[in-house]
Amino acid sequence: MTIQITNHYQALTEIDAIQYALEKNLLEANQDYTCKEIGDGNLNLVFHITPTTGGTGIILKQALPYAKVVGESWPLTLERAYIEASALQWQATFVPTLVPKVFHIDKQLAITVLEDLSNLTILRTGLLNGNTYPKVGKDIGTFLAETLYHTSDYALHPFEKKKQVKRFSNPELCKITEDLVFTDPFFDSETNNFEVELKEQVESIWANDLLKLEVAKLKKQFLTETEALLHGDLHTGSVFVNENRTIVIDPEFAFYGPIGFDIGQVFANLLFAYLHHPEKIDRLQTLQEVWETYYQSFTDLWNKGTEDPYTKVEGYLPFTLTKHWEDALGFAGCEAIRRTIGLAHVADLDSIKNQNQRIHAKLVSLKIGQRLILERKSITSIQELLSLIHQEVSTV
Amino acid sequence: MTIQITNHYQALTEIDAIQYALEKNLLEANQDYTCKEIGDGNLNLVFHITPTTGGTGIILKQALPYAKVVGESWPLTLERAYIEASALQWQATFVPTLVPKVFHIDKQLAITVLEDLSNLTILRTGLLNGNTYPKVGKDIGTFLAETLYHTSDYALHPFEKKKQVKRFSNPELCKITEDLVFTDPFFDSETNNFEVELKEQVESIWANDLLKLEVAKLKKQFLTETEALLHGDLHTGSVFVNENRTIVIDPEFAFYGPIGFDIGQVFANLLFAYLHHPEKIDRLQTLQEVWETYYQSFTDLWNKGTEDPYTKVEGYLPFTLTKHWEDALGFAGCEAIRRTIGLAHVADLDSIKNQNQRIHAKLVSLKIGQRLILERKSITSIQELLSLIHQEVSTV
Repeated sequence: MTIQITNHYQALTEIDAIQYALEKNLLEANQDYTCKEIGDGNLNLVFHITPTTGGTGIILKQALPYAKVVGESWPLTLERAYIEASALQWQATFVPTLVPKVFHIDKQLAITVLEDLSNLTILRTGLLNGNTYPKVGKDIGTFLAETLYHTSDYALHPFEKKKQVKRFSNPELCKITEDLVFTDPFFDSETNNFEVELKEQVESIWANDLLKLEVAKLKKQFLTETEALLHGDLHTGSVFVNENRTIVIDPEFAFYGPIGFDIGQVFANLLFAYLHHPEKIDRLQTLQEVWETYYQSFTDLWNKGTEDPYTKVEGYLPFTLTKHWEDALGFAGCEAIRRTIGLAHVADLDSIKNQNQRIHAKLVSLKIGQRLILERKSITSIQELLSLIHQEVSTV
Repeated sequence: MTIQITNHYQALTEIDAIQYALEKNLLEANQDYTCKEIGDGNLNLVFHITPTTGGTGIILKQALPYAKVVGESWPLTLERAYIEASALQWQATFVPTLVPKVFHIDKQLAITVLEDLSNLTILRTGLLNGNTYPKVGKDIGTFLAETLYHTSDYALHPFEKKKQVKRFSNPELCKITEDLVFTDPFFDSETNNFEVELKEQVESIWANDLLKLEVAKLKKQFLTETEALLHGDLHTGSVFVNENRTIVIDPEFAFYGPIGFDIGQVFANLLFAYLHHPEKIDRLQTLQEVWETYYQSFTDLWNKGTEDPYTKVEGYLPFTLTKHWEDALGFAGCEAIRRTIGLAHVADLDSIKNQNQRIHAKLVSLKIGQRLILERKSITSIQELLSLIHQEVSTV
């Protein structure tokens, strides 16, 4: 059977996907293949193509021209597939072992063909299942330091930096974050979604002008600070793991933004993992390792240095790392709140079966979220952050 | 005589310029014209074409494919002519009476044809000549508030804002500022140029790591903060005036940057005007009017409002205006230092004939520059700023 794959955009079927990969010589011709669409269908089709006789195959990811979240549907640029593929290729020049290999890019059809990672587990799923990944904290810390440092003004010639800012302009995906992370959860918006038991706490958030002022500042940073090429959606669902490997996937939200945003999303999502399994203290150790690795790796990269004479000025590196830390706490606070009461939740909290435990975990998330936003400039070490988390888990 | 004007870039002669304007129907055909090149020849050709019988004509401005500063020459994109023309046209939608009319744009030849403003005077020249312009403070304050507010995230849809950030990407002109304003003056760079009497003060600047750390932060803001479309080079040489009109010209450095940069350059250049004529206190009154008009106009625009619910959050407007103020002081400090010891000086200081007075003025400029950079967060009102200036003028 021959299927006509045109150059005009069309969403592929499973059979199309095999045909496409064969036509592009991404699969050996003399074999039979099985294809399964494994995406969640909200933003992308994800085809897993494997030899029928078993073994490793390929992933063919195709962007859909719309987004579906909780039944809503709105048009969304296909351009993001190209942004994602471009981000992966650039990141691979800094951290080749921490991102999936890209085998093929098709701008017209919004297709990226990627390394098959089906032998790995999504980090969120693995953590929810009670697994422990001793390397993941260091790997994510390294990923953050390498990708954020090397794409920033500290490393790039200003011409190159400004070219990349234009290349990774990503207004539609940024708008999703602007609305769902920074705005809707802090106002009585239709998109919000929370259990009735949280109502009192939620209404106190909506009424808290001091909190909202701080969120306004963080949102303004997100809108205006082109510090580095962010992953843009670095939660534990964007990381594949096993004992030996950590692979950061799905940078379709990539754009030039404030460095602390990526770090903060990691912090918050490891917090969720801990709130799901509060007996598993290693989730917080991972969080600590992320920061400590980031701090050391960024420092090493900075000290290896560029020509910029300001990088040698006493105090500039500590100032820079302190800003990343404070921003990360603030952005982590926004993530903690929006994942609890906004449109898009996390399984870590929603899947806690016991009602009392679930509500408790969510109240803790809201409380920690608020404190991180309000106290981000006075929490000055990872130890203080961990103490704050312990304190809130045991007192709410 | 017929001259062939091709579509390929070529620098025009005075005769070409008349021919070009006639071909484009920018001049009436049944008249004779006189053309004079009146530019300083560093970055652009500026042709003033008038009817031979007298009266108002047109200005034809053409970008040169290189920059000449103090004998040095380096290639420079012609794209900046289009950026300048586009900025003028966009600014005209907010402040039609404060920018020159644009009659014609030619992207290929890097030409902009503009309203003839030869009946006005360059503000720097007028101030040096001892003139007073009672409207100019309010006009510049209005220009700043209107152009900066309307091009920012406070006024634009995020899609539109991000489109404009890309459109006004201006790496080559930004690089000039990055080097000449933020870097070279603070290190022992070849481009620096200062009188031997300043050496001690200059060396103390180069050795002052606290100062350089603050300049590093300001440079980082210039590199990364896309707050609004800046004019980018708003000194008193970029303003035409007479008693009734104020016209802001030459936005070829326009790009998305931190709002305080434009305000700070105005502050510093009015300071230079005052240091030239320290008996003329109206220069500082103008500075005060710039800020007070900016503050009130920006506030009015904000309160008229957009849909963004955060603009209604208590404290967000004062936070925003305080940031603009502090940034403006810091950037003014950089401008004060670089115009005294860097590559590009100002006539306000260099043309003071009396040696002692000139050196005194320059030392005051350096001292005020350092204080503005270091104390920008503790100087909390225009009165404090004016007191600081008076204090330094009388004590150095």
